Amino acid sequence: MPELRFPSPPATKTELEEGNEFTPRFDSQGLITAVVTDAEDGALLMVAHMNAEALAKTLETGIAHYWSRSRSTLWKKGETSGNVQHVVEIRTDCDQDALQLSVRVAGDGATCHTGRRSCFYRNVSLEGGRPILTENG
Amino acid sequence: MPELRFPSPPATKTELEEGNEFTPRFDSQGLITAVVTDAEDGALLMVAHMNAEALAKTLETGIAHYWSRSRSTLWKKGETSGNVQHVVEIRTDCDQDALQLSVRVAGDGATCHTGRRSCFYRNVSLEGGRPILTENG
Repeated sequence: MPELRFPSPPATKTELEEGNEFTPRFDSQGLITAVVTDAEDGALLMVAHMNAEALAKTLETGIAHYWSRSRSTLWKKGETSGNVQHVVEIRTDCDQDALQLSVRVAGDGATCHTGRRSCFYRNVSLEGGRPILTENG
Repeated sequence: MPELRFPSPPATKTELEEGNEFTPRFDSQGLITAVVTDAEDGALLMVAHMNAEALAKTLETGIAHYWSRSRSTLWKKGETSGNVQHVVEIRTDCDQDALQLSVRVAGDGATCHTGRRSCFYRNVSLEGGRPILTENG
């Protein structure tokens, strides 16, 4: 099967924001931000990036693929750990430069490589005028 | 009051991921991604970016400030529309290169400049092998 291709953004803001053509706006490095939330309760699990290939594979297979910026490679999330992400829904934002993936996580349900369910496990707060982190949940 | 300063990331991955020092990792353009969710129900409202000044102002005032990439200026969200964001909680992720802002939106509750509650108002799906957008909610 030939890989999906994504058209260039339209000429007008109205088409971009109100149209029904999906024209993802990849940045200068060819990446788009993907916000990953749990399909069950909406919890924020992770933030990752996709290039056109990762996005195409995600749409075609229903399994989340990303671009690993640290390893410069296509990354099928959970391939090693078993915590594969089954995509329930994909959304895009008004100017089509960000995506939301609503997913069901397989395996033991951990999304973070530290073993936690979510990568967002620490709160930022000010203590004596200085920002500190404390673990949540 | 002198503006908050953020220390450089620590030497080890363990300190970065498990420590209690907040050392946000701004990208090569001095920005960090901020995922904005509703404090009431966790709904994803928008994705924006912050520079160190916007992050400091957000922590100091409890009102969300961003960096507008299109206008290259500090941006107090809602200053014109009245849809100011009161920050209930800030979280960071394992490698401290993304933030989650849990907010209460003032005014009429719209976050998107199109007047909608969330910027993520369209779903992406395949129709006849071609990705299309349909409005959700």
